Amino acid sequence: MLRTPLIAVSYKVYSEGMGEKALRLTKIIEKVAKDFDHTVAIIPNLVDLRMVAENTELPVFAQHIDPYSPGSHTGSITAEMIKDAGAVGTMINHSEKRMILADIDAAIKRAKDLGLETMVCTNNVDVTGAVAALGPTYVAIEPPELIGGDISVSTAKPEVVSGSVEVVKRINPEVKVLCGAGVKKKEDVTKAMELGASGVLLASGIVKAKDPEKVMRSLLEGLDDSL
Amino acid sequence: MLRTPLIAVSYKVYSEGMGEKALRLTKIIEKVAKDFDHTVAIIPNLVDLRMVAENTELPVFAQHIDPYSPGSHTGSITAEMIKDAGAVGTMINHSEKRMILADIDAAIKRAKDLGLETMVCTNNVDVTGAVAALGPTYVAIEPPELIGGDISVSTAKPEVVSGSVEVVKRINPEVKVLCGAGVKKKEDVTKAMELGASGVLLASGIVKAKDPEKVMRSLLEGLDDSL
Amino acid sequence: MLRTPLIAVSYKVYSEGMGEKALRLTKIIEKVAKDFDHTVAIIPNLVDLRMVAENTELPVFAQHIDPYSPGSHTGSITAEMIKDAGAVGTMINHSEKRMILADIDAAIKRAKDLGLETMVCTNNVDVTGAVAALGPTYVAIEPPELIGGDISVSTAKPEVVSGSVEVVKRINPEVKVLCGAGVKKKEDVTKAMELGASGVLLASGIVKAKDPEKVMRSLLEGLDDSL
Amino acid sequence: MLRTPLIAVSYKVYSEGMGEKALRLTKIIEKVAKDFDHTVAIIPNLVDLRMVAENTELPVFAQHIDPYSPGSHTGSITAEMIKDAGAVGTMINHSEKRMILADIDAAIKRAKDLGLETMVCTNNVDVTGAVAALGPTYVAIEPPELIGGDISVSTAKPEVVSGSVEVVKRINPEVKVLCGAGVKKKEDVTKAMELGASGVLLASGIVKAKDPEKVMRSLLEGLDDSL
Repeated sequence: MLRTPLIAVSYKVYSEGMGEKALRLTKIIEKVAKDFDHTVAIIPNLVDLRMVAENTELPVFAQHIDPYSPGSHTGSITAEMIKDAGAVGTMINHSEKRMILADIDAAIKRAKDLGLETMVCTNNVDVTGAVAALGPTYVAIEPPELIGGDISVSTAKPEVVSGSVEVVKRINPEVKVLCGAGVKKKEDVTKAMELGASGVLLASGIVKAKDPEKVMRSLLEGLDDSL
Repeated sequence: MLRTPLIAVSYKVYSEGMGEKALRLTKIIEKVAKDFDHTVAIIPNLVDLRMVAENTELPVFAQHIDPYSPGSHTGSITAEMIKDAGAVGTMINHSEKRMILADIDAAIKRAKDLGLETMVCTNNVDVTGAVAALGPTYVAIEPPELIGGDISVSTAKPEVVSGSVEVVKRINPEVKVLCGAGVKKKEDVTKAMELGASGVLLASGIVKAKDPEKVMRSLLEGLDDSL
Repeated sequence: MLRTPLIAVSYKVYSEGMGEKALRLTKIIEKVAKDFDHTVAIIPNLVDLRMVAENTELPVFAQHIDPYSPGSHTGSITAEMIKDAGAVGTMINHSEKRMILADIDAAIKRAKDLGLETMVCTNNVDVTGAVAALGPTYVAIEPPELIGGDISVSTAKPEVVSGSVEVVKRINPEVKVLCGAGVKKKEDVTKAMELGASGVLLASGIVKAKDPEKVMRSLLEGLDDSL
Repeated sequence: MLRTPLIAVSYKVYSEGMGEKALRLTKIIEKVAKDFDHTVAIIPNLVDLRMVAENTELPVFAQHIDPYSPGSHTGSITAEMIKDAGAVGTMINHSEKRMILADIDAAIKRAKDLGLETMVCTNNVDVTGAVAALGPTYVAIEPPELIGGDISVSTAKPEVVSGSVEVVKRINPEVKVLCGAGVKKKEDVTKAMELGASGVLLASGIVKAKDPEKVMRSLLEGLDDSL
């Protein structure tokens, strides 16, 4: 497993994090990450996945996999495909790519069988408990109404983070809790860690930042402060 | 909560359990049920729901609800609609009507808010654990490959039933476990109860039976035997 | 086929058009309709369908059907179910219940096989053309951004109505064009008819009106004016 | 537009057409294609798209795009992403990746805006007509029950191919008809061309062939024979 605490940066399908810009952004993040002793994982779009993985030392996650084995599944993403492309793990069930429950379970199992980590996104404390029972590597709790906004979940709804940490401890203590939605500054990270999270997941806060290097440095300092 | 043990009979959207035939089948089931001291719930199709509920004393469940409040959701089924029609509860996430995880959670909460029971279907032990964390009234474990077949889950995969009972006890002991898929005869019921289930869920075993009365009687005798 | 021009009123899953309120609203609409020589069809929610159909002389449509035959399709709505309940037709592919293309085609065919009319909803002129090729009874063009709003499609985007009428004439002239979204007053109906529509589809304009009788009368007068 | 006749080879998400094997297979197809004066397009999986496009002179299509613009759509595939990766076009609505009608229309428009070709898959003659009305570059007719089988649509259901050619001619004559499902040998291609198709779409016939080079050569000879 990747060492925690962890900062995971998704490029979504933003034009600011696509193609050549994905490579440039990755270089910036990588450069900052080298000044710290924390894990930084990046999550480029699925078409850029291989190119980005081949050009960075940072661990790379996919944004999604389908629950299928290799075969007749035109247009789908298998665990085999992302592993072959260099990913060490995958997001599953992001709020922008919700999956039916049986498929979340199957996708986690397929990823595990190939030695891939799984970061399953959830929208509230109860769903976090449900996902914990499925045994992913991480649960990333992100209240949908806060995603892409300016207020971090750890500030706006601290009880969602602490509640998630508690329910996971009770149901499956091996699972790590990340928190996302609105993470943009140092204090968001410190607060998340205080509430018991093992890291943060963010996207626009870095990818759409005027100065991604500065933001990245600030977030990593937030991790330093929390130790 | 309905008293357990419980036998729940879904009419799916079989022609043998639709319209007038739904009423006739309900009368047969009701007649047999009166000879026993067990709970029998019926689950007619959504269009027949009100008519069947108005013509029986048996508790009636809906086959599905959507996670929406009343409003602009053309073609959807709200908890309010099924309650108004006389249902005391609803199935959620049947293998033929899978839902995304966040919607399962929302549908359970909407049903609970209206005092409706929830019977959430699952396909394996891990998913049963996940659903238990969401706190429905019942989890109905039905391995999809056995649904509609001739071998009961309690015979073909007893470990799925006992494993479900165990995981639910650990995660949320207030939840009752039903088992479905392939239930057709007395022994299927007895076996299910031995494995720790609180009842069974079946469909074709009754609805497509040559003599539904005989089968219903046999299943209820199976419950008697297990006490 | 129902005689056009046609005014179709959907109750969506509004609480104002559910259960007892559905019956009361239907009586009001029926009463007004008797004063005019036009067709008024009503579209109650799926659970109320049979009760409403049994208590009115107005033609009743379902809000949705799935493309399946009777069988193992728990929670689905078949053409057989709605016909048995008294519907003379069904909406298909409402913007709040979008379907995959192959299922729209299959649902139209299943409905036709049972002698049911089909009213397929579309979101723009091109999609209207596509649906016309599938041969439903009606295409109901409703730009999603106008649904539930205060400005009618015939006022806000007259070219969408006239364009739909043209493309249908070219591809399949037997199909009738209805227009929906924002229809609330007499002028909306007159305008729609001037643009070549065979009627209108509305929901909140009646169901959420303070005085549904008055609105209904006004819309029917709009039809009178257009002749 | 690519010159027709056209042979399009999808690698689906077969392990035989993934990663290094995708490159090797592409080299084989490219080598054979150089001996003929026909267009051969390849359709690798989405994660391999860029790598394959960078290593071949053959035109490359994506297997799927979503209807979204760049933005907050984690795990989705935009037209921008596949264009940046080197694709000249994309499949849309493959039977293994069905889309709702409004999204098919939106995806075609997004692809066109970026100068990408579109190959929309259909399951019968009526749906082919519907898709033709949306104006894609190609319609690929593939009866689902024949996909992956041993009998070609042009042999098993010639009327589906000729019917598709006719309906497209009537509704939108600029659209080219490809036919797929079960295409494996020379005669399948010749027959398809006789029926009025502008080419064929295949997958397992090449990707899972013992000798893909031989099959590819045979199919191209089939095109030669048909001219």
